[in-house]
Amino acid sequence: MVFIVDCDTAEDDIFSVIMLLKNKKDIVGITIVEGNINFDQQVDTMLWALEYLGRDDIPVFPGSRRPLVKSFKTVEEVHGKGGIGDEIVKPSKLKASNKHAVDAIIELSDRYAGELEFLAISPLTNLALAYLKYPKIVENIKHVYIMGGTIYGRGNITPIAEYNFWVDPEAAKIVLNAGFQITMVPWEVAVMNAIDDNTWNYIKNMNTKLSNFYIKIYSHYRNFSMKRQRMRGNPHPDVITTSIAIDRTIIKKANMEYVDIETNDGLTRGAVVIDYLDAGHIITNKPNVELVYDIDYGKFVEILVNTLKSD
Amino acid sequence: MVFIVDCDTAEDDIFSVIMLLKNKKDIVGITIVEGNINFDQQVDTMLWALEYLGRDDIPVFPGSRRPLVKSFKTVEEVHGKGGIGDEIVKPSKLKASNKHAVDAIIELSDRYAGELEFLAISPLTNLALAYLKYPKIVENIKHVYIMGGTIYGRGNITPIAEYNFWVDPEAAKIVLNAGFQITMVPWEVAVMNAIDDNTWNYIKNMNTKLSNFYIKIYSHYRNFSMKRQRMRGNPHPDVITTSIAIDRTIIKKANMEYVDIETNDGLTRGAVVIDYLDAGHIITNKPNVELVYDIDYGKFVEILVNTLKSD
Amino acid sequence: MVFIVDCDTAEDDIFSVIMLLKNKKDIVGITIVEGNINFDQQVDTMLWALEYLGRDDIPVFPGSRRPLVKSFKTVEEVHGKGGIGDEIVKPSKLKASNKHAVDAIIELSDRYAGELEFLAISPLTNLALAYLKYPKIVENIKHVYIMGGTIYGRGNITPIAEYNFWVDPEAAKIVLNAGFQITMVPWEVAVMNAIDDNTWNYIKNMNTKLSNFYIKIYSHYRNFSMKRQRMRGNPHPDVITTSIAIDRTIIKKANMEYVDIETNDGLTRGAVVIDYLDAGHIITNKPNVELVYDIDYGKFVEILVNTLKSD
Amino acid sequence: MVFIVDCDTAEDDIFSVIMLLKNKKDIVGITIVEGNINFDQQVDTMLWALEYLGRDDIPVFPGSRRPLVKSFKTVEEVHGKGGIGDEIVKPSKLKASNKHAVDAIIELSDRYAGELEFLAISPLTNLALAYLKYPKIVENIKHVYIMGGTIYGRGNITPIAEYNFWVDPEAAKIVLNAGFQITMVPWEVAVMNAIDDNTWNYIKNMNTKLSNFYIKIYSHYRNFSMKRQRMRGNPHPDVITTSIAIDRTIIKKANMEYVDIETNDGLTRGAVVIDYLDAGHIITNKPNVELVYDIDYGKFVEILVNTLKSD
Repeated sequence: MVFIVDCDTAEDDIFSVIMLLKNKKDIVGITIVEGNINFDQQVDTMLWALEYLGRDDIPVFPGSRRPLVKSFKTVEEVHGKGGIGDEIVKPSKLKASNKHAVDAIIELSDRYAGELEFLAISPLTNLALAYLKYPKIVENIKHVYIMGGTIYGRGNITPIAEYNFWVDPEAAKIVLNAGFQITMVPWEVAVMNAIDDNTWNYIKNMNTKLSNFYIKIYSHYRNFSMKRQRMRGNPHPDVITTSIAIDRTIIKKANMEYVDIETNDGLTRGAVVIDYLDAGHIITNKPNVELVYDIDYGKFVEILVNTLKSD
Repeated sequence: MVFIVDCDTAEDDIFSVIMLLKNKKDIVGITIVEGNINFDQQVDTMLWALEYLGRDDIPVFPGSRRPLVKSFKTVEEVHGKGGIGDEIVKPSKLKASNKHAVDAIIELSDRYAGELEFLAISPLTNLALAYLKYPKIVENIKHVYIMGGTIYGRGNITPIAEYNFWVDPEAAKIVLNAGFQITMVPWEVAVMNAIDDNTWNYIKNMNTKLSNFYIKIYSHYRNFSMKRQRMRGNPHPDVITTSIAIDRTIIKKANMEYVDIETNDGLTRGAVVIDYLDAGHIITNKPNVELVYDIDYGKFVEILVNTLKSD
Repeated sequence: MVFIVDCDTAEDDIFSVIMLLKNKKDIVGITIVEGNINFDQQVDTMLWALEYLGRDDIPVFPGSRRPLVKSFKTVEEVHGKGGIGDEIVKPSKLKASNKHAVDAIIELSDRYAGELEFLAISPLTNLALAYLKYPKIVENIKHVYIMGGTIYGRGNITPIAEYNFWVDPEAAKIVLNAGFQITMVPWEVAVMNAIDDNTWNYIKNMNTKLSNFYIKIYSHYRNFSMKRQRMRGNPHPDVITTSIAIDRTIIKKANMEYVDIETNDGLTRGAVVIDYLDAGHIITNKPNVELVYDIDYGKFVEILVNTLKSD
Repeated sequence: MVFIVDCDTAEDDIFSVIMLLKNKKDIVGITIVEGNINFDQQVDTMLWALEYLGRDDIPVFPGSRRPLVKSFKTVEEVHGKGGIGDEIVKPSKLKASNKHAVDAIIELSDRYAGELEFLAISPLTNLALAYLKYPKIVENIKHVYIMGGTIYGRGNITPIAEYNFWVDPEAAKIVLNAGFQITMVPWEVAVMNAIDDNTWNYIKNMNTKLSNFYIKIYSHYRNFSMKRQRMRGNPHPDVITTSIAIDRTIIKKANMEYVDIETNDGLTRGAVVIDYLDAGHIITNKPNVELVYDIDYGKFVEILVNTLKSD
């Protein structure tokens, strides 16, 4: 089992990489896609993090700098200009690969056919482009974990749309309908399981190298989430998705559903539509995703804390 | 406090009228709008019910036979061809008024200015037309109770849209943004509080005139809801809305929200968009509805059973 | 043959009224609808014009102040704040009727059933509302003349949409699909037949009461059209439509077509779609309008000049 | 000056290739994209044609088998099952390249940077994908010739949309807004300049190898165009575009315009919106295409006939 991690680098993307590595998972490539902050800074912040982790062996492949069809916006107000707060970090030596993320995904999917897992904690442009050019990746990739969308229509960038799907709804539509084995973690699961004061303070007192790093990179996001979005703490949309990829017993409730995306302009661009099979008199489609409704917060904190202890 | 009840007559519309009357509320007019079944049958079934109730003093005003802009479909498979099952009922003598529902609403709103309550348990075409012609009804009408839409994006006619709002999304958009005092009961509240086997059997055994009538008119809908929509029993979208109009302590949870409707074609036509004010970095609008999130099932059953006992 | 003239009062609406009257047509009502300039000023400017004409017997019925579903904007930059330039004119004594335009249209359609012609030189909100409430006007009204839309996708308010249809595309869709006998004059016909320098100067030198009035009320619009829209002169969208209603031999080319309107948000809201029957492998609809492709400029100028000579 | 020709192989694509070759243009690659007929047959028919021409040195690169985001349909009723009528042709030996069209376009754009011309006589999926992965092709490719869209809103697959843009409106939107030097030939230019009976009969009597081939491959399309679309003969949308690429003096009228594409669902999906700069009070965008309004029919027939004479 090996991973590609597709990132729009911010704190939660970085910690997803850390969690995979500390749980002995092989990462064969990190691909970068348009999203949270300035594209080049996303590449730099990821390279900086890999240097910090001493893992300059993991290749970073820059991919699409824009959504497929329409425009988007970055959200530096959420994650800070550097993605880990407003500090602009740079790698000292490490450089990104010259290979385009789309080629990297295609080639790695052939090389690791049947054992490759794809962790998509970002808009789905890179994966959509790889699929459009090379549909065989549907068979090659064993499983796709997607952070994106909503279960109950509670968005974070528009009233109804979640950021990753809103940035590139066309890509989300393509990927969801491509035939992949997908587990999808929607935004509300992150909101319901945001890190509360107890856990935050516990981590603060751990005083390991990684716990100090965690506090450093999450402080900006935690502050934004609590002050501006009135959440109980900092959410972990990406890291929850990652933890499910590591240990699926963290899932408390999930179900197979048919999920599609609204791509038209208007109030609902980027909205998730879930076609409940039990809505008897509706013409329904075959389920295309395992939709996660909730996780076990205790178990999730356990894997988080264990990761922080490991270094 | 007097009521206009706007109906697309089926069993739940009729029982809403019964519940109001048995709880000593004055109904100054029943208006009919396109919706559940054939329009003329909707008029006939309501007149038939009023004859059954001995209330031929309540005028029935036929209104719009179609949504404002686009097409719709009736759902005889849900409620039966007569709206109370497949029996085609007819009034023996009672006739509908020659006055159009839109004129009736406008005139009654002037006559009962400040004390008129509007119970909209149907697509909102009539009310939208009355408002477009005579915006002063916003001041005249004390409160509008609307059965329609969703809270969590769980529809019943498309995966994301509820029937009443889907039939005429343009009318819903107009009414929600007109400035009325609105309490809105979405579909999921009806699903969560469908009449379970215990309550159904209890009613069956009551053996009052009204309980027998209840069993008779709801059997088709209950059967459809359980077999085709896998619900735990027959839902009461309209009657719950009515019971809140009678006694708002039935509400367990409600909140003021800004709600808007998607009118564009596509996957989400008729979908509800709720603009949560606590989504801090989103530009938000002023709340325009009291959105009901849940009711007290026990209290609701109590008012239902008391109604059935009254005759 | 009697007329209702539905106006969003500016110079071309006023001159349409003048042309009808000077050609011995009876106007049984002027209805006002949202459009070119501030609604109350539209009413005032029309009353002012009727006083000028000494025709205080013609009732003016204010109608809808807004489109059916969405928002719009007035275009004082085109017609001036008073609709005849920037002068804010007021009637000295004349008042608008208390009857709503929608009721007036319905009642007049019954009174003059079979001989009433409807001149819609404005957004179609009033007529759509009258139809929705009283579909029988389709039979009552002998003919509807509509100024609106495009033939070749050359708009004037967005690149593809003409102002009247763009202000209320939903109303246009309703009216076009209602079953009326319709003659439709699109924007490009007005552009192609704008009053050139020769004709303008000729009128200037006529020095009749009406020619002086014409020069006065059209100067602002002519200036805008030539400077800002690079047209050859001032166009007469409304007056061309009116002249066709008076004498249809002015039409050079017209054809029966099926015309529909895009109502979705996006680049094309308000656009006209013409379903050419000769596009053989397309599923086509029955023609619903007589679409005017061009008029005889000479004949049009003749009826215009004759009108100006008459007083 | 060298060419890539992007085809959804039918008679007019094949003849475009022939016309380029007989006019001494180098074709460095033919790329195939979803469109007119079954994808594999499109590849086969092109290989068959190259064998017929004795040009097995020109590589054929299969590309995208589907539009970027939504579904489409092939139009075998227009071009026949083989694209040149209903005969299913196959190459005897020639095979398509294993390289994907998108990679081929990118590599050839680097190899022939500054002199490569791209002839897009097909939906724009391949070029959009190449651009999304490698934006530098905008600089590399000297000129893009596009057959697609409309000037006057006269479509051929829906009332308002032309086939190539309708198949993949998202791709068209991407390509038009990418910054290429573009000449665009819309559908109406092909209709206005369809091959009339005179020219058809003249070609019939030429009795050259190529004129006989021309009559053979165009008969099905001519028949469809005249019987089902009531055209005056067989149109040459692709070949006109090609002839302009060879000799731009064939253009009678062209203008620089800003052109965009409607991608929303509804009546107008795939429609062209042209933002006329002379529509003074509209906010306008910078021109992005040279839009061809008409060609010189005589000159076009001349280059056509000369091609047919050459072999």
